[in-house]
Amino acid sequence: MITKNTVKLVQSLKQQKYRKEHQLFVVEGRKMVQELLASDFETIYIFATASYMNSNTLDDHRMEIVSDVQMEQMSGQNTAPGILAVAKIPHEIEYVDTQRDITLALDGISNPGNMGTIIRTAEWFGIKNITCSSDCVEVWNPKVIQATMGSIFRVKAIETDLESYLTQEKANGTPIYGTLLNGKNLYTTTEKWDHGIIVIGSESHGIRENLLSLITVPITIPRFSGSVTESLNAAVATGIVLSHIRSKV
Amino acid sequence: MITKNTVKLVQSLKQQKYRKEHQLFVVEGRKMVQELLASDFETIYIFATASYMNSNTLDDHRMEIVSDVQMEQMSGQNTAPGILAVAKIPHEIEYVDTQRDITLALDGISNPGNMGTIIRTAEWFGIKNITCSSDCVEVWNPKVIQATMGSIFRVKAIETDLESYLTQEKANGTPIYGTLLNGKNLYTTTEKWDHGIIVIGSESHGIRENLLSLITVPITIPRFSGSVTESLNAAVATGIVLSHIRSKV
Repeated sequence: MITKNTVKLVQSLKQQKYRKEHQLFVVEGRKMVQELLASDFETIYIFATASYMNSNTLDDHRMEIVSDVQMEQMSGQNTAPGILAVAKIPHEIEYVDTQRDITLALDGISNPGNMGTIIRTAEWFGIKNITCSSDCVEVWNPKVIQATMGSIFRVKAIETDLESYLTQEKANGTPIYGTLLNGKNLYTTTEKWDHGIIVIGSESHGIRENLLSLITVPITIPRFSGSVTESLNAAVATGIVLSHIRSKV
Repeated sequence: MITKNTVKLVQSLKQQKYRKEHQLFVVEGRKMVQELLASDFETIYIFATASYMNSNTLDDHRMEIVSDVQMEQMSGQNTAPGILAVAKIPHEIEYVDTQRDITLALDGISNPGNMGTIIRTAEWFGIKNITCSSDCVEVWNPKVIQATMGSIFRVKAIETDLESYLTQEKANGTPIYGTLLNGKNLYTTTEKWDHGIIVIGSESHGIRENLLSLITVPITIPRFSGSVTESLNAAVATGIVLSHIRSKV
């Protein structure tokens, strides 16, 4: 039987403050819980309603039945999917070796849907780690988790001081690419794209002033002649750049 | 002075039923209203609060001051931006000449953010018209409008019976591209990409069964070796395909 205190704990994880305090996050829905269980993340609880259990199977001894009311209290979704797990936020995350591989650095991505979609897109194109400026939306936010469609369990996202990180990488000679409105044409640059960091700016302000001087290769996704729209969505831009560079390798 | 009935009318436009009945839609926020006024759409009303007027200028004789309470009643956003316009849904929309240009066909795109982002991305890459299956989210939905960042005023989206449309186009010899999981490698096909229709499937089911046989050129965005994620977000996939084909023209 689930205790009142556990329901309260899970409920509290809707807030970033308590996710940070307990180092736990919530995963909801069948597919996402399966992805969690198939990952190397540590699962603490799995809860399901009786009606969910009747129409689904999941062979895990940790699964506990909860009432519909308890599930609704714990769920952060408008309609609780009937299965919910609690997992540990991983501690040890390695930075990618930027002399051998491509990684992403996100500067102030604030929309959870964009953040999740960027992580999902990164996985498609074989990016293993992402560094996020400390004012990015927290990746353990339930909306981010949901939008990753499970990629959160395979692409490791690290919160970091981007300015120090990029300063050090630049000193090591790592190519630091940045998507700007006045960079080199993405389609015609002769970059090798076999290692380095791609910096993606925020939805509203692009790459911030303090990071601009750290960009060693400014790049631009050419806008079709005659189009007057000002920018691309951050996740779409990420997908376009990653697709282009992976088509070259 | 705005009448109670007008406030009620604008309020009703939060629902698709009344947008359809009145053939009107709502645009909110400074940038979006400016984009509307710069477009060839017919603007019916512009409302602003006194505090908005104090800190902004907009030279349009149709602008009327409303109280904060009235603005909150009319606004569909959590925090009303203080300026709101009502515009006519355009009637006459031409289909693109698919023998001379590329167009998009959307099959059941249901997420408003995705729909808006697809329209925005389409504009960046010079797509003029988009045909949408009748079960796509309605493009005059406020969340769609917002996510287009103004592109809704320049890219025309038409609701249509996709199956009849594509059947007719196929009979005319138009290339009909479709993004599938088992098509030709996008990066290595030798297509000219100078005209035709690109079909984008829904977020959950991809391109539907009844349309699959109408696809003349199935294409796939290659997944990086080792990645296990199942799919890309629909707007990201659209951006990748459009970027690729525009880099060839």
